Amino acid sequence: MADINEIRAGEIAVSPPAAGDAGLEFIGRMHTPWTSRAETPRQGRDDGPICRIEVFDKWAPALKGLDAFETIFVIYWLHQSRRDLVTQSPRSNGTTLGTFALRSPVRPNPLGLSQVKLVGIEGNIVSVRGLDCLDGTPLIDIKPDRCPHSG
Amino acid sequence: MADINEIRAGEIAVSPPAAGDAGLEFIGRMHTPWTSRAETPRQGRDDGPICRIEVFDKWAPALKGLDAFETIFVIYWLHQSRRDLVTQSPRSNGTTLGTFALRSPVRPNPLGLSQVKLVGIEGNIVSVRGLDCLDGTPLIDIKPDRCPHSG
Repeated sequence: MADINEIRAGEIAVSPPAAGDAGLEFIGRMHTPWTSRAETPRQGRDDGPICRIEVFDKWAPALKGLDAFETIFVIYWLHQSRRDLVTQSPRSNGTTLGTFALRSPVRPNPLGLSQVKLVGIEGNIVSVRGLDCLDGTPLIDIKPDRCPHSG
Repeated sequence: MADINEIRAGEIAVSPPAAGDAGLEFIGRMHTPWTSRAETPRQGRDDGPICRIEVFDKWAPALKGLDAFETIFVIYWLHQSRRDLVTQSPRSNGTTLGTFALRSPVRPNPLGLSQVKLVGIEGNIVSVRGLDCLDGTPLIDIKPDRCPHSG
């Protein structure tokens, strides 16, 4: 395993964010097949496994009407990510890019965003294909996609 | 002006989130033509006005390489929004829908998400078309869109 605090060539780190400008509430959690970062796919696929998004009971009525959409956006909290890298040198190609030009989980506000296929909703469980996050990842928001992809 | 604390028929409010599960840092701010919610468009348009996203100096190097993308995702904090509505009855059609089936700024974690056209980057300023947020809205994250739209 690589040291997750390692700094690679070309990377710039700053002091971690104070993170006191606004606060988030975790409103659910994701159930996926992946229990370590090493086995989690870099990017979700429309033909990937069905994953279940559990919405905590208090917010379950907020799902009413979501089943009208073919694709939805899911925003979640990448709770294992460091937040101090401004540039990053992904191992895959050796070049250095800015954090905002990457989908890396390492970012000042480690929010994950997935545009996923809605498979179905039962009670407080939303089943989708296309996720790429760790099992147990906290849920932050669900939004309909106003421009459904074809196919 | 409507009372922003008004509850309409069919709406369910819960206690506002404790919002202490995770903290955000504002990393920039949006400059748009809209200074009140009444005049802000409900949804951004690709042929809308050019808006400027200011990234605070500390994070400016994080933009390196973003100009390779035609469309980007912008996540921002809807700082004027209440957070307690589980269902909502948008004035436009009278029906009641769950918060997660709406793009309303009112949500447990009031994050705005826009998929916008990148116009250009100069220093710490990212110019885009397709935003629909208030002038001065705090910036939370920028991500490349891996699947650029055609046209």
